[in-house]
Amino acid sequence: MSLLVVGSVAFDALETPFGKTDKIVGGAATYISLASSYFTKHVNLVSVVGGDFQQADIQMLQRHGVDTTGLQIKQDQKSFFWSGRYHNDMNSRDTLVTELNVLADFDPIVPDAYQGCQYLMLGNLAPSVQRTVLQRLTQRPKLVVMDTMNFWMEIALADLKETLAMVDVLSVNDEEARQLSSEYALVKAARKIQAMGPKTVIIKKGEHGALLFGPEGQIYFCPALPLEEVFDPTGAGDTFAGGFIGYLASTDDTSFENMKRAILYGSAMASFCVERFGTERLVNLPEAELQSRIARFTELTRVELPLAV
Amino acid sequence: MSLLVVGSVAFDALETPFGKTDKIVGGAATYISLASSYFTKHVNLVSVVGGDFQQADIQMLQRHGVDTTGLQIKQDQKSFFWSGRYHNDMNSRDTLVTELNVLADFDPIVPDAYQGCQYLMLGNLAPSVQRTVLQRLTQRPKLVVMDTMNFWMEIALADLKETLAMVDVLSVNDEEARQLSSEYALVKAARKIQAMGPKTVIIKKGEHGALLFGPEGQIYFCPALPLEEVFDPTGAGDTFAGGFIGYLASTDDTSFENMKRAILYGSAMASFCVERFGTERLVNLPEAELQSRIARFTELTRVELPLAV
Repeated sequence: MSLLVVGSVAFDALETPFGKTDKIVGGAATYISLASSYFTKHVNLVSVVGGDFQQADIQMLQRHGVDTTGLQIKQDQKSFFWSGRYHNDMNSRDTLVTELNVLADFDPIVPDAYQGCQYLMLGNLAPSVQRTVLQRLTQRPKLVVMDTMNFWMEIALADLKETLAMVDVLSVNDEEARQLSSEYALVKAARKIQAMGPKTVIIKKGEHGALLFGPEGQIYFCPALPLEEVFDPTGAGDTFAGGFIGYLASTDDTSFENMKRAILYGSAMASFCVERFGTERLVNLPEAELQSRIARFTELTRVELPLAV
Repeated sequence: MSLLVVGSVAFDALETPFGKTDKIVGGAATYISLASSYFTKHVNLVSVVGGDFQQADIQMLQRHGVDTTGLQIKQDQKSFFWSGRYHNDMNSRDTLVTELNVLADFDPIVPDAYQGCQYLMLGNLAPSVQRTVLQRLTQRPKLVVMDTMNFWMEIALADLKETLAMVDVLSVNDEEARQLSSEYALVKAARKIQAMGPKTVIIKKGEHGALLFGPEGQIYFCPALPLEEVFDPTGAGDTFAGGFIGYLASTDDTSFENMKRAILYGSAMASFCVERFGTERLVNLPEAELQSRIARFTELTRVELPLAV
């Protein structure tokens, strides 16, 4: 089924203990689109870039089957730019530069050809912009997944809650879940967030895996692969979301059982993402490597138990 | 098969956000013995307490089938005492009081009747004391599991390494693994620790589960149960170790596949431990609750995948 991805397409400049990059392609929608393209061939992008964005980078997305009709190009403006430096443990980072540029007044125009999409991924953006997209769809998608971050909880909580009430799945990290719910225990946090709207909540714990909370109290836990090196965590959460919704769109099955599989595929995609700078690993990922990574994930928690002790 | 447990039997005074206790029974060997008693009925204890220790508490251990012949009682001395206060997140704590008392010059005497034990659990103690126990066994056990903590890495590293070289399995938490190996990534940390002696390494990550690293590069990950409330984390690591070695001793199978099951049973026991203060939950745990908890653990990561995407 067709998938609509909304979010930033941007430039990042990254510094990790392993090195640093000049401006490279980044942005939530870039990672989501690339990751989902390994599962579904109908990815429609809504985003905005400036005149500084390279045609080659747009073509890279197109080669992955991403429809860029909805990618606005503001020739006289600059693309969103973020620069950050990761600490030695890779779990914390300092933002060095944030230039909103074209994102500052982003009006998410949905091309007519995108109408009727069945799966919608709202990448991290101002909650009011995310909501505008939903309002501009003539038909409500079968599944709406939303990502957000603590920044919006601090400056636009009312807006965020209004958008939250309209989505099916929220994907946040553990700290964001705690901040949004004012609950420390993630089980309680998820329940409070479910009461705000999204019947399904994903809580990402980075190197500690991800939890999926279903509408009937179901819980699924997917580990992260224990990696020897996390080269660059940028985009891992978006890549996860892209694998998740890409798999759901390709199978067109939104049951909890299928979401469990989607979480596992999303985790596998994220485990690739962190192995290189930026999108490097996602741009050309052989199918066989993906399959073998998924096998490692399932092997990691596989245990055969006797019927009773 | 018979299991020998060596470690502290002590008093703890605990303070958590949920309340505080007077002096209650604690100590690594107490938790290990209690947890293992749910799997094997041949638990032999080597430890030491003072004259202040209650006969009722020794009887509690005996009711669980624990042989206390090796529990020395120093009538004119006091039992080891630890007091601590947990922070709101339950992941960090301050030690308020540590009184070594009888532990200061603990000479671990192994009763003749304990000789020939096949499974040995060396709970956290001075590494030289742990080593002494091994040296006093006329026959090397089939499996020796050792726990330790960062304290010994700081003040007795050479001693610790000497003992490490003699054991089969080391159980530590993530921070201890990192300190011991000087590696941040746990995969690398485990490999370095394996090179120090123990062919199998368990890295406990608290609420984030536990990793088991096998002698041939195998990795198994067992999640922790997402709990609504962690009432008191004291003893969780020892309870985990007790369930682990208790299950191995009962099945008498030290293969990696069986160790995976043992990790799961250990995790299940630990999930009970943290639900109440101290040993409260472990003292009387119905078999049906244990089985239902284990089912929840397996359900948590269960996912059926198609053969290919």
